[in-house]
Amino acid sequence: MIFTQKWTGRRVGYEESFPVTVPGDIQADYAQFMGWGDVNYGDSWAKFRQLEDDTWVYSTRVQCEANENERVYFVTKGIEYEYDVCMNGKVLLHHEGMFTPVDVDITEALSYGDLLEVIIYPHPKREGAAECRDQADQCCKPAVGYEWDWHPRLLVSGLWDETYIETRKESFIRDAEVFYTLDEDLKGAEVRFEIDCDGECEVELYGPDGLLVYRGPERVIRLENVKLWWCNGQGHQNLYQWAVYSDSKMRRGRIGFRRVRLVMNDGAWDEPSVFPKGRSNPPITIELNGRRIFAKGSNWVTPEIFTGQIDWGTYEKQLDLARRANMNILRCWGGAIINKESFFDLCDEYGLMVWQEFPLACNNYVGTPHYLAVLEQEARAIIKRVRQHACHVLWCGGNELFNDWSMMTDQSHALRLLNKLCYEMDFDKPFIPTSPIMGMAHGHYHFHEVDTGRYSFEIFNGSSNTAYTEFGVPAIVDVEQLKLAIPEADLHDPKPGGVWQSHMAFGAWGEESWFCKGILDDIFGPQETLEDYIEKSNWTQCVGYKHIFEEARRQWPHCSMAINWCYNEPWINAAGNMLLEYPAKPRPAYYAVQSSLRPVLPSARMETFAYDGGSVFSAELWLLNDAPVEVSDTIHVYIIIDGVKEHVMDWKTGVVPAQTNKRGHKIQIQLPAEAVTQKLILRLESDRYDVSEYELLLRGKKKVDEPEVKILNM
Amino acid sequence: MIFTQKWTGRRVGYEESFPVTVPGDIQADYAQFMGWGDVNYGDSWAKFRQLEDDTWVYSTRVQCEANENERVYFVTKGIEYEYDVCMNGKVLLHHEGMFTPVDVDITEALSYGDLLEVIIYPHPKREGAAECRDQADQCCKPAVGYEWDWHPRLLVSGLWDETYIETRKESFIRDAEVFYTLDEDLKGAEVRFEIDCDGECEVELYGPDGLLVYRGPERVIRLENVKLWWCNGQGHQNLYQWAVYSDSKMRRGRIGFRRVRLVMNDGAWDEPSVFPKGRSNPPITIELNGRRIFAKGSNWVTPEIFTGQIDWGTYEKQLDLARRANMNILRCWGGAIINKESFFDLCDEYGLMVWQEFPLACNNYVGTPHYLAVLEQEARAIIKRVRQHACHVLWCGGNELFNDWSMMTDQSHALRLLNKLCYEMDFDKPFIPTSPIMGMAHGHYHFHEVDTGRYSFEIFNGSSNTAYTEFGVPAIVDVEQLKLAIPEADLHDPKPGGVWQSHMAFGAWGEESWFCKGILDDIFGPQETLEDYIEKSNWTQCVGYKHIFEEARRQWPHCSMAINWCYNEPWINAAGNMLLEYPAKPRPAYYAVQSSLRPVLPSARMETFAYDGGSVFSAELWLLNDAPVEVSDTIHVYIIIDGVKEHVMDWKTGVVPAQTNKRGHKIQIQLPAEAVTQKLILRLESDRYDVSEYELLLRGKKKVDEPEVKILNM
Repeated sequence: MIFTQKWTGRRVGYEESFPVTVPGDIQADYAQFMGWGDVNYGDSWAKFRQLEDDTWVYSTRVQCEANENERVYFVTKGIEYEYDVCMNGKVLLHHEGMFTPVDVDITEALSYGDLLEVIIYPHPKREGAAECRDQADQCCKPAVGYEWDWHPRLLVSGLWDETYIETRKESFIRDAEVFYTLDEDLKGAEVRFEIDCDGECEVELYGPDGLLVYRGPERVIRLENVKLWWCNGQGHQNLYQWAVYSDSKMRRGRIGFRRVRLVMNDGAWDEPSVFPKGRSNPPITIELNGRRIFAKGSNWVTPEIFTGQIDWGTYEKQLDLARRANMNILRCWGGAIINKESFFDLCDEYGLMVWQEFPLACNNYVGTPHYLAVLEQEARAIIKRVRQHACHVLWCGGNELFNDWSMMTDQSHALRLLNKLCYEMDFDKPFIPTSPIMGMAHGHYHFHEVDTGRYSFEIFNGSSNTAYTEFGVPAIVDVEQLKLAIPEADLHDPKPGGVWQSHMAFGAWGEESWFCKGILDDIFGPQETLEDYIEKSNWTQCVGYKHIFEEARRQWPHCSMAINWCYNEPWINAAGNMLLEYPAKPRPAYYAVQSSLRPVLPSARMETFAYDGGSVFSAELWLLNDAPVEVSDTIHVYIIIDGVKEHVMDWKTGVVPAQTNKRGHKIQIQLPAEAVTQKLILRLESDRYDVSEYELLLRGKKKVDEPEVKILNM
Repeated sequence: MIFTQKWTGRRVGYEESFPVTVPGDIQADYAQFMGWGDVNYGDSWAKFRQLEDDTWVYSTRVQCEANENERVYFVTKGIEYEYDVCMNGKVLLHHEGMFTPVDVDITEALSYGDLLEVIIYPHPKREGAAECRDQADQCCKPAVGYEWDWHPRLLVSGLWDETYIETRKESFIRDAEVFYTLDEDLKGAEVRFEIDCDGECEVELYGPDGLLVYRGPERVIRLENVKLWWCNGQGHQNLYQWAVYSDSKMRRGRIGFRRVRLVMNDGAWDEPSVFPKGRSNPPITIELNGRRIFAKGSNWVTPEIFTGQIDWGTYEKQLDLARRANMNILRCWGGAIINKESFFDLCDEYGLMVWQEFPLACNNYVGTPHYLAVLEQEARAIIKRVRQHACHVLWCGGNELFNDWSMMTDQSHALRLLNKLCYEMDFDKPFIPTSPIMGMAHGHYHFHEVDTGRYSFEIFNGSSNTAYTEFGVPAIVDVEQLKLAIPEADLHDPKPGGVWQSHMAFGAWGEESWFCKGILDDIFGPQETLEDYIEKSNWTQCVGYKHIFEEARRQWPHCSMAINWCYNEPWINAAGNMLLEYPAKPRPAYYAVQSSLRPVLPSARMETFAYDGGSVFSAELWLLNDAPVEVSDTIHVYIIIDGVKEHVMDWKTGVVPAQTNKRGHKIQIQLPAEAVTQKLILRLESDRYDVSEYELLLRGKKKVDEPEVKILNM
């Protein structure tokens, strides 16, 4: 039986206790108790700084006792970050690490109403480290809370996931996991139940149609005509349900049968070709059930600063939007938490493949004995939980560890340990030590490099990486959203320092990011109002993302991944690269990306973003198809300038095989010398699919005299 | 007590038994019995083909019995490759793998004179594989015997290492290993004896000076003022001796205290520098005792076809020459055997660092359950033995596994397993999955690319790899050596096919290798006699190796390794890249390399090998210094043409710091239009160090009329 307890919180050194929510974060509870207001607004976030080195206590009076032949357990899926579990003042468990489940037998120390406490130690900070993410380089706490370029410095801890008291009979099922081995031809499978229980158990297996496949005492079941699990866009998300029963407990779960491998990208074996000769690029193409997949999606970051508040609903809104955006993969970035169970459940259902990183990001996690011990324990817990999910396709050591801002290498013991643990515990799953590895690339994160004059168009047209697993185009969020974060007095005065800066509009990643005033001025000239900047930056974000995603798809099968930075955000940033504004509001760029990720779409490859009036505009036509079916289409090409829609040509694509792109004609058009608006719209209409439209910059001499421009002062 | 047995051999299916040598290879014994003659001569090697699928039996009558409280063991360091051990016809052990020691208790089955047999199964060949090294891709037998471009197809097996019967009392020491942890400042160490013995033991430790450091019962000893082990050229090879005694057994060994790491090459963190941004090159600079080392040496291959015949003397001759050639590293290539104990003992003494590969080379070793099981068992035995040696600095998965002729990847289970086992069993030792990894390179193996016109000069001047771990310049061996392999009738008729081809002069690696007639003709014009070709090819080998080694040293510290292909050979090849002719005879190129690997030398960087008469010759002067001391010198530069030595200039280098190269002037000289000989000699004399001399090709118009050239017909 499960007993949910009522807990109270206390800040050590202070008398008063305060109400807490479990699961939750004790700093959030304390802030509410103190009336600190919405963390998203103004500089409220900064108040949490004073709580960083505090110790906290969760207390509860246990509302149950053990019957005969029962034992009582304190159970939680995880406690952030270092803590003691105490009964009546006696320490039963000391632990470091938030991803290891807790399962403490409290029977001996227990009477009804006894005091159960969880003492939470101060946030780990490596001694001598600068006050930034460096402080996290000897622990397994997510580095993001120590400040990132889209996350304020705000550290949380506490009973952040499901927590309860449980009474258990002898026949309690301590653990049940289901493994399978698919036949080489993927038609049949051997299913193995591994059950940790002292009593008798029965197992059940139901098909994706809900019909019973097996019920009985066997632990190994042979299955024929297996219905495979596919990612979004490639087939059904078939999930089998299983359950294990003893006379006092049931455990249940789901299996999605699929085979996943990393295979070599097309052409990778052909390089290098001259002496002295190096190695070929490593494989980064996902092969799912024998089919090579173009992985298209986004980087998933913490969806809430207060991770204890994340629940099924939080995930469901964002993940449903990801599925609707035609995504098939999410990269769960190593700076953030390992998500709660419902995240993976939903990804299983929605066909969103999960690339899971361990909690290492942008630091040198030196392999000291203490760090390796904590990492091993946390990694084992993470692997054991995540490996069960059909959606999970890839392990990764962490984010950007092989670059000079991290300085880990292939020799780093932490990464060798993770490789070893994944080999031992999840043999068939691919593992990469970090992203990017050889052949892959991260960046750029701006639409335009002022110093080189390159737009993201030239940058990606000129690149030939095997996978683009981070790239971003920033934009300012809309005014309604800004009002929830920026006080009225500052709203129309965006500038470095103050609340605009703490909400990441300035100085977040270099001076420009993420408002990018200098970049926007360079492209469009100085703008008059905040709304003008918002409009222009959203224009660049939409067309920029659209071009990069489609260019990466054009590079298939040499390139096999396009995963932008980033999908979501944990609070209200004033500007950034995300597709959803906090908490789950699609930005214009969301719809642009949704359009670019359609299984089949007409697409155009432009050389750049900005065109001079009177010059020749050219674009190459493509039909992009990553669906597992052959297609054909006729594409009608139009140019729209100043509202005049001009028919350019029609392209009959002919048959385009499954998962193949087809290159078409290169259109070339003499642009007018003058135009009223600065927009050149290329529009591709289709007989079968939705329209694709690209808004480009036309630097024609304006037909009418310009009014005097009032420069926005910042 | 140890009893050496007398064994006889038998080919299953044949009546007659034959005498065998143990250690040895049963095919060699059989060949001797059959009078097949020297395997090096003519096509004798081909006779062994008929023995490939035979089963063999070693037999002996055990010449001892166990006394009371004793047990009797059959012991061998390894049996190649799959075998049964039988007593009186009963199988006591079935085993696959030649690197796992055998330790079989035969007491129960034993009376004096009993029959002990070892049944050797046919050589492993993967079913369906072509008759080449592919057959070895599911076993841990060295691939080289299945034929390589310098090794005939000739497979051996048998009791290839130390083998005996041993009687053991209860206090027998089953195992003793010594581990240590050096202090961070490398001044002190904790020494730990790990002893597997049921009786009482004492331990002893003696310093490099032979004086007793400790004797007594402790298993953990604290040592101060540790004398470190250094590689050749960087300091002394200090070795401590240890012994462990019980009342019936002694075990002894040596410790060389040193700390070894792979650290980033200079400048590697600065790249890549533009977006989209990949990863930095992995580290490949050896840091020994805190000092970065330029690793200079050669690829070590099997020194005998009949690996059972290899003994201390075999190794000593070759390794002493390596040390004298100023080498500090040997790459023990994955296609060959893991060497016997005396190899590592000698490398410990001579300061030759050992890069040890596992037995994988140029194949895709697919991770089937059977293969992974054999690999794990063999790898554990290899790691346990080799990790004890001071000389051992690097583990490597195998040779060229990440290229299209092998098609393994970072995802290959075999390599992930090896990484895991090295992490578990030899935590502090670097591991790389293969050679080359990112940044490194293998090749070229020719002096001249006829199609591009590039010489090894242009090829390496234009490369900027972090490590050159294979490169070769072939030459024909000398006539006296050729006579030992090529029958008189064929000697002056070198041509593809027949005995010249089987001794690797033609068709070994493409048509040209390794005689390289077309290449030599392209450079020098058609030659008259075999001796002329030998002279010309040795000229290119000497100057080619000299240039490559010195150019790699000039690229320090961006580049940190120069390891040529290859050092030795296992039989008489007619031509090849090796520095020693079989068995241990230095070629002219050996001395050229020896000169280029001196700790300090004047060196010149030429742009190419061949110069037209009347053109301007230029060369950049360098002082190369990889010694741990600062140096200075005056270098006197001369040009010699037609025997006339002309003084060009003197360069005072000034002070050159330890382990640093200094770039000097670039000399520029107008060459004469005509010359008698085709040689341009650049000679660098030094006040302090030996001379450096480079023989280049001067394509002047000959001063005298040429006699009609008689073209050697091939």
